Amino acid sequence: MSRVQDASISEFALDAWSRAELARVERALSQWVGVDAPGDLAEAMRYAVLGGGKRLRALLVRAAFEAVRSGAAPQDAVTQCALEDMALRAACAVELIHAYSLVHDDMPCMDDDVLRRGKPTVHVQYGEALALLAGDALQAFAFELLTPDDAPALAEVQAALCRLLARAAGSAGMAGGQAIDLASVGRTLDLAQLRRMHELKTGALLQASVRMGAAAAMALQAPAGAALARYGAALGLAFQVVDDILDVTADSATLGKTAGKDAAHGKPTYVSLLGLEGARAQAQQLWAEAHAALAASGLPDTRALAALADMVVCRSH
Amino acid sequence: MSRVQDASISEFALDAWSRAELARVERALSQWVGVDAPGDLAEAMRYAVLGGGKRLRALLVRAAFEAVRSGAAPQDAVTQCALEDMALRAACAVELIHAYSLVHDDMPCMDDDVLRRGKPTVHVQYGEALALLAGDALQAFAFELLTPDDAPALAEVQAALCRLLARAAGSAGMAGGQAIDLASVGRTLDLAQLRRMHELKTGALLQASVRMGAAAAMALQAPAGAALARYGAALGLAFQVVDDILDVTADSATLGKTAGKDAAHGKPTYVSLLGLEGARAQAQQLWAEAHAALAASGLPDTRALAALADMVVCRSH
Repeated sequence: MSRVQDASISEFALDAWSRAELARVERALSQWVGVDAPGDLAEAMRYAVLGGGKRLRALLVRAAFEAVRSGAAPQDAVTQCALEDMALRAACAVELIHAYSLVHDDMPCMDDDVLRRGKPTVHVQYGEALALLAGDALQAFAFELLTPDDAPALAEVQAALCRLLARAAGSAGMAGGQAIDLASVGRTLDLAQLRRMHELKTGALLQASVRMGAAAAMALQAPAGAALARYGAALGLAFQVVDDILDVTADSATLGKTAGKDAAHGKPTYVSLLGLEGARAQAQQLWAEAHAALAASGLPDTRALAALADMVVCRSH
Repeated sequence: MSRVQDASISEFALDAWSRAELARVERALSQWVGVDAPGDLAEAMRYAVLGGGKRLRALLVRAAFEAVRSGAAPQDAVTQCALEDMALRAACAVELIHAYSLVHDDMPCMDDDVLRRGKPTVHVQYGEALALLAGDALQAFAFELLTPDDAPALAEVQAALCRLLARAAGSAGMAGGQAIDLASVGRTLDLAQLRRMHELKTGALLQASVRMGAAAAMALQAPAGAALARYGAALGLAFQVVDDILDVTADSATLGKTAGKDAAHGKPTYVSLLGLEGARAQAQQLWAEAHAALAASGLPDTRALAALADMVVCRSH
């Protein structure tokens, strides 16, 4: 994928930008998650959320927010501050939904995983009952974070964020994709079905992250909003295609999880359906689509979004 | 509790009112639940939600909405219609949260129940993995229902409804109460701790139902809103006190579930802490508090709310 690497990954200091953004997101999550919860539940919720993960979803929210702000007329300081706060809340909310889905996915009745990011999974650490409740509470907390009651002027932004997140998390999004995945065990999926499953299972929340960033900057309906939605859709699929490529090309140590797992389980992947070269071409095409959408957005500064697309496609783990 | 029965239960045709309201709620749920979901998931979601339950929470939303509307200036037909729609959505949303909590509660890692309302529980019928996903998807769908995108004028109502529901469902509400319940197995709770557990576990969603009805009628902050919140808090606790009384006084056939279960499990209840007469006095006092709050609300027509309080305290199952 040398063409991709040549393109733009060096033009924007993604590392420095990510570090600064993630410091804010981690601090906010640490300040907010579990504070109202009874002892055991608070601990399980914090264990599930804090100190781990790439936070790609949070970064997408922040990058989309900044891109839209770069093209918007300056606002008064109070509004600007309130919107910044909503963008931070949105970044945390998508991570809460992602974290809850991992807690429930890892449970014995689902994937029955005992390790995640090198630590015991939540149900191993706290028991299944508390893991179930922690996941449930994290989902509710995502919507709580999006609706602070000291910001009535931003009701429209709050409602839009809840709308986007609920659809992305629910039966026409992440949960729906997981149900398709569950039903596909031992069956053959064609490329359209595989694509549909991933659009829901991982794509919906990745795309929603981008759209929520735009919504926090009040640009959901503008032409820029539509272009960013296309960027999010392409990036969401690219993420999964690259996952499938890494599953056969990377070793477990680099990957941080067991390589070759999908093939071993006979699960259909982009590589099994398209071949390795075909899957690489597909990733390349989705990467181009993401960049084309950014170019079409008319936004002056989409560097962070561009760099995230490059990272998703060029990553080694 | 003859004093209660004398008071007002016959003045309002609760049965006829409930039947009409519930017909609308059931129709809406049947029309909305699972329509966007893949096959298996749609079936499990609909199985969990449709055709069962007293729908007390939905009735509280509708009754609070009507009470507030009875005291409000008439609005134009379009706004009135839109608010009616939001109240119906709120009534469905609280039932979705209640239904998802039952699905997850029944799972083997929680209460391990195989029957609910005479039918196999969701995990018995569809397997644990799909039950877990159906519960997760139902919670997301509750927030989806509250944020239709064809009603931008009602963003403030939508945000308020999401805010109330998220807090009531999450770690400072229902999920938090369940965690306290889980942690209390084999321990002794005093009356304050028992009350706190029930305020969260069942009270929060019952109170939220009342407040969401008021919010859909745009009266959350008005004096009437505060009075209705007090009504909801009293009714929520009364519901649990009466549950504890029925657990020792009713037979299983009347109750539709195993009587004496709490006592058999050594769980602390209002009856075990206050004695049967003490618990009855407590229920009576909460009933009086609920009615006093309605009187203080200044709303002209609180008959449905009054009748629901009577029903909660006088019910035999």
